[in-house]
Amino acid sequence: MVTFRRTHTCGEMREKHAGHEVVLCGWVHRLRNLGGLIFIDLRDRFGITQIILDPKKTPAAYAIGENLGLEYVIAVKGKASIRQDPNPNMPTGQIEIFADEIFLLSEAEALPFQISDTRAEANEEIRLEYRYLDMRRGPILSNLILRHKVMMAARKFMDSEGFIEVSTPMLGKSTPEGARDYLVPSRIYPGTFYALPQSPQMFKQILMIGGLDRYFQIATCFRDEDLRHDRQPEFSQIDIEMSFATQEELFPIIERLMQAIFQDAKGVQIKTPFRRMTYAECMEKYGCDKPDLRFGMPLKRLDDLAQKSTFTVFHDVLKGGGTVKGLTVKGGADISRKEMSELEAFVQSLGAKGLAWLKLQEAGFTSSIAKFLPDSLQKEWVQRLEMEMQDAAFVVAGPTKKVNQVLDHLRRHLAKKRALIPKESYEFLWVTDFPLFTFNEEENRMESEHHPFTSPNLEDLHLIEENPLKMRSSSYDLVLNGYEIASGSQRIHDGKLQEAIFARLGLSQEERKAKFGFFIDALKYGTPPHIGVALGLDRMIMIFANTDSIRDVVAFPKTHKAQDLMTKAPSQVNEVQLKELKLSIK
Amino acid sequence: MVTFRRTHTCGEMREKHAGHEVVLCGWVHRLRNLGGLIFIDLRDRFGITQIILDPKKTPAAYAIGENLGLEYVIAVKGKASIRQDPNPNMPTGQIEIFADEIFLLSEAEALPFQISDTRAEANEEIRLEYRYLDMRRGPILSNLILRHKVMMAARKFMDSEGFIEVSTPMLGKSTPEGARDYLVPSRIYPGTFYALPQSPQMFKQILMIGGLDRYFQIATCFRDEDLRHDRQPEFSQIDIEMSFATQEELFPIIERLMQAIFQDAKGVQIKTPFRRMTYAECMEKYGCDKPDLRFGMPLKRLDDLAQKSTFTVFHDVLKGGGTVKGLTVKGGADISRKEMSELEAFVQSLGAKGLAWLKLQEAGFTSSIAKFLPDSLQKEWVQRLEMEMQDAAFVVAGPTKKVNQVLDHLRRHLAKKRALIPKESYEFLWVTDFPLFTFNEEENRMESEHHPFTSPNLEDLHLIEENPLKMRSSSYDLVLNGYEIASGSQRIHDGKLQEAIFARLGLSQEERKAKFGFFIDALKYGTPPHIGVALGLDRMIMIFANTDSIRDVVAFPKTHKAQDLMTKAPSQVNEVQLKELKLSIK
Repeated sequence: MVTFRRTHTCGEMREKHAGHEVVLCGWVHRLRNLGGLIFIDLRDRFGITQIILDPKKTPAAYAIGENLGLEYVIAVKGKASIRQDPNPNMPTGQIEIFADEIFLLSEAEALPFQISDTRAEANEEIRLEYRYLDMRRGPILSNLILRHKVMMAARKFMDSEGFIEVSTPMLGKSTPEGARDYLVPSRIYPGTFYALPQSPQMFKQILMIGGLDRYFQIATCFRDEDLRHDRQPEFSQIDIEMSFATQEELFPIIERLMQAIFQDAKGVQIKTPFRRMTYAECMEKYGCDKPDLRFGMPLKRLDDLAQKSTFTVFHDVLKGGGTVKGLTVKGGADISRKEMSELEAFVQSLGAKGLAWLKLQEAGFTSSIAKFLPDSLQKEWVQRLEMEMQDAAFVVAGPTKKVNQVLDHLRRHLAKKRALIPKESYEFLWVTDFPLFTFNEEENRMESEHHPFTSPNLEDLHLIEENPLKMRSSSYDLVLNGYEIASGSQRIHDGKLQEAIFARLGLSQEERKAKFGFFIDALKYGTPPHIGVALGLDRMIMIFANTDSIRDVVAFPKTHKAQDLMTKAPSQVNEVQLKELKLSIK
Repeated sequence: MVTFRRTHTCGEMREKHAGHEVVLCGWVHRLRNLGGLIFIDLRDRFGITQIILDPKKTPAAYAIGENLGLEYVIAVKGKASIRQDPNPNMPTGQIEIFADEIFLLSEAEALPFQISDTRAEANEEIRLEYRYLDMRRGPILSNLILRHKVMMAARKFMDSEGFIEVSTPMLGKSTPEGARDYLVPSRIYPGTFYALPQSPQMFKQILMIGGLDRYFQIATCFRDEDLRHDRQPEFSQIDIEMSFATQEELFPIIERLMQAIFQDAKGVQIKTPFRRMTYAECMEKYGCDKPDLRFGMPLKRLDDLAQKSTFTVFHDVLKGGGTVKGLTVKGGADISRKEMSELEAFVQSLGAKGLAWLKLQEAGFTSSIAKFLPDSLQKEWVQRLEMEMQDAAFVVAGPTKKVNQVLDHLRRHLAKKRALIPKESYEFLWVTDFPLFTFNEEENRMESEHHPFTSPNLEDLHLIEENPLKMRSSSYDLVLNGYEIASGSQRIHDGKLQEAIFARLGLSQEERKAKFGFFIDALKYGTPPHIGVALGLDRMIMIFANTDSIRDVVAFPKTHKAQDLMTKAPSQVNEVQLKELKLSIK
């Protein structure tokens, strides 16, 4: 069938190849007939090389060339020559190939959309339906290659540190706690189901109980949730667990893992150790548990100074147990009145009652609340907010949770708006000591902040009955540029403590046994202390690829309704299949 | 909580560590109280080190030691010393640790079975239920480490050859052709289902159409079949696809991949290129399509010589279109009459009518069919069967398929029985040119021998209507020591040919559209010629680990009824879950 053998890619042709006989294969990217010659831009994954067909020298090849269309697949045999009119914009721009022979490998019908290297020419639905054509556009393949590099770097590093990659089962047990499971009906035991794993959590802990010591896996996980723009029904995490270790052993390993990934995938040198901050500090200073540290603008608490003001709004808030906090924008005195109004509308849309501002300029101090701040107090406010000449500050009052939320949003909003975020900058932060429990007000019950296998901070154990929401856990997140990219914890390795936590979460003895019985049993036979973490692979690639859609970094993504527009999955199945599973559809 | 930091593993203690202060962590493997001292064999994944507790020097540690039991988890702080009575059977046998402090990390209840390094002390059911305890026995963890090494070696090699690992979806479309799909009900579109992939076949071809050029993936695949001893509902394959290439490009890559895997995982040097044989040659010479080439005993066709005999059984078989074939056992003249009877019973159990034998000894030629072979013919038989002095030969007559099947079994049976298989020997073979179609007599329809995307040998295209079973395909298997470890093919890259094949398989236009519509469409927009292969990872590890149970090489295997005895999956789920899926159980 095929009488040629590809010798080079379309991306590697350089001056040094002049005079070589080559065979290139690829897609017809552009096609022009100029002065009796046919010019073809031949494209493969690696690049584009210019091909020329000359009717006088090679009439047979020319005849084939006359019938080519865009995206036809061909092989070209010919001699590489120095180009008369080099194209400095292409890495292969020094070279052109005069074709001796052309092999037509595959034709192409008229495309549903144009293939361009840079812009997405069609709407996303059509591009997802023809994912293979959208891939030819370039960015998707680049992202897949980036993803491959990240996975390789991660695996090489984990291997070098003595971690063993173990594949844990996809067909697992349903233990619906947090998110919804995807179920898989069993044919052999009708009426029973497997569940696709939300994470390999129990399996990796079982591996520690089995003595594996150091485990990792690039694991596929599943959640049947209503999807946000950055979620997919299936996603990947770099899953890690180690025995006989604490944060002090684990953190440096993860930091070096990050160094290895950044080095191999992006050629970027990352500094270690990473900063650390407790959850409590984080909330106080940034109003959130995943602050973007690429820029400043920390929050300042102003409760005492607000008390000294004559502003009754502040007094009422403080009396009600709320707080007054602010942040300072360097050089923000240039913010116009109109912008001020827009910012006020912005915080109001987030639920704040209002936004007070302060400015320090040559002309003096001005503020929307100036009349409530006597001269002497003004200085204290300016000092607390660390305002310098030409700075502006914003102040929000209200319930603590709301104030933090609003100022966190405002801080990020201002950073974007005022271009305070340096490009290609990567700021890591370990956030530690998360609360152990959180209260789900909708369902009126206690939930684990991380998951029920997370060890409490043992100093706080006495709080379990009376004040569980004050208990700290031995858990941590790794934050990169304002995104949570990893989350982990010291695990409970004491069966009795594990039972106590399940009980505190409101699981009856019966439920515990049905869902976690095997695991509680396993803890009884000699369980080493162990600790672990899971890194969100997709999120990490998104940051590298500088995109805010997970669909850009996954080969065959699903829509927000969990559909594959290309294959049309999910789809109806035939009666025989349902009959074998003894299922019927209501 | 933890006031120690592990400094070494229990496997690395050597003479050079004498005098070092160390902290070891692990499980109490053995425990003895001798002459007032407590001796502990402390075990972790890496090995065992002897710990000594002396009540005079460290009474507190001794007191803890008195209350330890088997499989308790402890940390030991102490000084490494040269052992008075070195144990030459242990790598750490030069060293013992006098414990200064012991930290009790976890207790252990009485075990359901003893943990021994070598023997499996309990039946498999109980060992699967307590998989984590069985892991501590050693072999399972060794196999998981072996598996990790094989995966690392494969990934490093494929990466070095420019292949990109791409994760294809787990939630795919059901296209039941060969095996049964595992289905996943969709909640958002009730009544529709995803299917877990039987292989990433169409996705990897789509990646070629998208221009990725070189793809690989260690892919998890699923089949809902009744399980044989070497099958699991989920299994792994090293999945590979490349564009613009034929066998001549692909085979050397796979051969080098095998070299890399054997080198890294087993330290064994593999010779390349591998032998090749067509399917037709294979069947003729070994009676099967996956011959074990670690030993000889090829089959010889004897049709013409059988015709010359006076044995009417042979004549009848030949008249009926059957065949007469035999094989020669070097030195087999020592096979006793009793063994001969056993061998005859063996072939009869496989469906042969009988087993003729021939022997060549100093005393002369003897045979169960001697009276049908005149003297001159005896010589021809001996010559054809390449018999030498002291050899025996066996002959079977019947329908060709049956004769091949029986002699294949007999050949392997004799090799095992007579210990003709060299240990640690690895014999690879490419089997090429498989038939394109096979006829499923039960369902009375044509099936693809490989899969419907396999390219026919284009020389045989004219046979498609009249004699499709004679068509050869461009497909191949890689055989190692008698096991098929890889299977692949040149793919169809012409949409019209693909439709013709689907049609020949009896798929109506409608079925084609519903199941493969998107794929047939994709072929129309410029598809490069491409070729691929999938290597059975589990099988490969089984060969390395010298086990014939896939459950030994998978971390958390399922039984032949697809149950996880540890977690008790599959299991019942709650009403809410079924209600959300709008499913009911009949």
